[in-house]
Amino acid sequence: MASPTDPEKPEKPEKPATPAKPAKLRLSRRALFGLGGASVAGAAIGVGAMAAYEEFNGGSGTTYPFYGEHQAGIVTPAQDRLHFAAFDVLDVSRDELIELLQDWTVAAANMTAGQDIGRHGAVGGPQSAPPEDTGEALGLPAAGLTITFGFGRSLFRTKDGDDRFGLGRRMPDALEPIPPFAIDSLSEASSDGDLCVQACADDPQIAVHAIRNLSRIAFGRASIRWSQLGFGRTSSTSKSQTTPRNLFGFKDGTASIKSEDAGTVNKWVWAKGSGSEAWMNGGSYLVARKIRMIIETWDRQSLQEQERVFGRSKGEGGPLSGGKEFDEPDFAAPGTGGNPMIDVAAHVRLAHPKQNSGIQLLRRGYNYVDGNDELGRLNAGLFFISFQSDHRTGFSAIQANLRRDAMNEYVRHVSSGLFAVPPGISDGGFIGQRLFAD
Amino acid sequence: MASPTDPEKPEKPEKPATPAKPAKLRLSRRALFGLGGASVAGAAIGVGAMAAYEEFNGGSGTTYPFYGEHQAGIVTPAQDRLHFAAFDVLDVSRDELIELLQDWTVAAANMTAGQDIGRHGAVGGPQSAPPEDTGEALGLPAAGLTITFGFGRSLFRTKDGDDRFGLGRRMPDALEPIPPFAIDSLSEASSDGDLCVQACADDPQIAVHAIRNLSRIAFGRASIRWSQLGFGRTSSTSKSQTTPRNLFGFKDGTASIKSEDAGTVNKWVWAKGSGSEAWMNGGSYLVARKIRMIIETWDRQSLQEQERVFGRSKGEGGPLSGGKEFDEPDFAAPGTGGNPMIDVAAHVRLAHPKQNSGIQLLRRGYNYVDGNDELGRLNAGLFFISFQSDHRTGFSAIQANLRRDAMNEYVRHVSSGLFAVPPGISDGGFIGQRLFAD
Repeated sequence: MASPTDPEKPEKPEKPATPAKPAKLRLSRRALFGLGGASVAGAAIGVGAMAAYEEFNGGSGTTYPFYGEHQAGIVTPAQDRLHFAAFDVLDVSRDELIELLQDWTVAAANMTAGQDIGRHGAVGGPQSAPPEDTGEALGLPAAGLTITFGFGRSLFRTKDGDDRFGLGRRMPDALEPIPPFAIDSLSEASSDGDLCVQACADDPQIAVHAIRNLSRIAFGRASIRWSQLGFGRTSSTSKSQTTPRNLFGFKDGTASIKSEDAGTVNKWVWAKGSGSEAWMNGGSYLVARKIRMIIETWDRQSLQEQERVFGRSKGEGGPLSGGKEFDEPDFAAPGTGGNPMIDVAAHVRLAHPKQNSGIQLLRRGYNYVDGNDELGRLNAGLFFISFQSDHRTGFSAIQANLRRDAMNEYVRHVSSGLFAVPPGISDGGFIGQRLFAD
Repeated sequence: MASPTDPEKPEKPEKPATPAKPAKLRLSRRALFGLGGASVAGAAIGVGAMAAYEEFNGGSGTTYPFYGEHQAGIVTPAQDRLHFAAFDVLDVSRDELIELLQDWTVAAANMTAGQDIGRHGAVGGPQSAPPEDTGEALGLPAAGLTITFGFGRSLFRTKDGDDRFGLGRRMPDALEPIPPFAIDSLSEASSDGDLCVQACADDPQIAVHAIRNLSRIAFGRASIRWSQLGFGRTSSTSKSQTTPRNLFGFKDGTASIKSEDAGTVNKWVWAKGSGSEAWMNGGSYLVARKIRMIIETWDRQSLQEQERVFGRSKGEGGPLSGGKEFDEPDFAAPGTGGNPMIDVAAHVRLAHPKQNSGIQLLRRGYNYVDGNDELGRLNAGLFFISFQSDHRTGFSAIQANLRRDAMNEYVRHVSSGLFAVPPGISDGGFIGQRLFAD
């Protein structure tokens, strides 16, 4: 088993935030060991270059840089597909946790560049060893893949108070748990976790390949606690994108922060911090909420009732006070019978920045369908993701204001996660490196 | 409740197989009633045209004709995404079953043409009624949607022998149950069913929209028994398509029938029949098998072992006897130690037409990932679909020959379905019409 001072691996850089270009990271022996059992450790080393295959798919050859000031997958224009996974770290040491993050960094840099994992990839290694890459992305383009990592509260301090990795004093205040809400019906087994990985791409095979291979690399060190596939993005994160529809049939995320609004992004998305939280500067906080939609009940409501609940028209998505999708709602505009045109319980009213001290969220949710329940109803809904500088002045504040939301009748929150997403890194560093720098 | 002689609906055509162009079908009152409760039946009638929305998505505007000699979704070039559902018919009459099939026909013709369902669609109806269409496909192109319907054995005769719809004497011999196999680990609740619907499209939102709306229309008449989403096609049905990869990382379905081979399609895909089975002429039989792959175990095998199991190279997909993907394997070619180059237990050998009396399948499978199990392993695999003129000389014959397949160590069949897929219809008819014509 390799330690961080293993000669196969670079020294841990002294000042990791400085882009001093330490020797390029590569997969640890432990990762290779985990990939295929004892035979690999020797065999996988020293063989020729990865074979090249033509792209068979006309799909998206877009690639986003893995390295940078911030992690990709936050303000990146929202891709079409998602595979999200939360991991529990097993009984390993701090050094082994660091090594896992280093291995994940190497693999993520490979995959987001459209490359197979490792030096030999899926088919370039020795016949006697398991391939370093599982192969289902062979020949496919990068499809805009981004991989975004986050740290859960339990990584810093378990529920029993155990500071298992010596990170307790660095736990950010903003990992204070999300408070309970009336519409919560949360499954503990499908909530939280020590680590999270958000893989987004325009091709689901690429997103699945990423989570599968990161899970494989983590073997013996961390295992998937819960996971979720999403098939249709429900928000735009760029003005170049049109607003898609959720499974209630409405445009969703119209008011989500767009990456072009630099001032807004800086204020509401990127985390600030000093002292013990300095490692999170330039990071963000990810809130994930699996929101089951009771679509059969929804579908039986009249168009009028559906529009009252949203406060927007179903077709164009304009506010019921008039205008088009991106026009500002007029919450005071009088309707019939002494009521405002936009109902007092309408979602758009209660979620709007004007009703929430100006708070804005960057949303990155996806539609999901997980088969059906025993009553023949589709197990469907929205896998909501938002990024914010602090959930207490972000998701949790708005969600508290939604307690009277007319939409609550049609949704249940069944899973929840809160993760500190560290800032980006430069080539040679590893995800979360500043957290471990003493 | 409307009956087939309701004045709102066309008369049941006397000779349904003759394309005599009866009055165009439209959604029954019962379907409209099912959509939203009592208020709808009157309110939804007589309002203006469906509003038109620009396409916001640059995606596939491909449309395939719904009407024709055969149902679409069989030899149609395999689309990228799948939503498959099996339904149980509830306690309804034969006439109500016919009406459901008529309603499904109308809705499927709408959706495959890229239109919303019904006369008013998602937003064109009266404010006081639930929309006829749920709306999440609003503004999206057809994305190559095909909807393919099938009838399970239990529609003709239940396990108790009950001929509940008077169809027993028309049950085809080829609905004889698929025999058990050693690798079966089937869940009864996720197998079989009275009806099946295969929705394929290049956009998962379109496929999900189709199943969701057909399920909604069926309210009170049929409900989803089990369902499956698939994200990556694992076969090509046209020579214009390249061969994609399954979750073992190998190209899958190289030897699947291609639609350009008309003689092969005619021989091995389309059902023949006379007498009581004449209604199935031009139809086909659909076999669905959900095949869980033990990917963690697979990933620990050496490249050599993986290639031995498949009998093909992982990169190019050529047979181990030499050559490229579409070159014929040479099963006699001698390897080392007195063994053939293609192992005696290799999947390509045991599944090949040469080893199966020339039998060929048209495959239309998809990769799936259904979250993870409690051990943190991805619940992943292949949702296998094949079409054949008779499963006894198709899937079941080949599967019997696979009993010694080296791949069996890495897979379990967890769900199974067999459905008679009736031939196509002309505009004005309804799916399966000839089955009900006495």
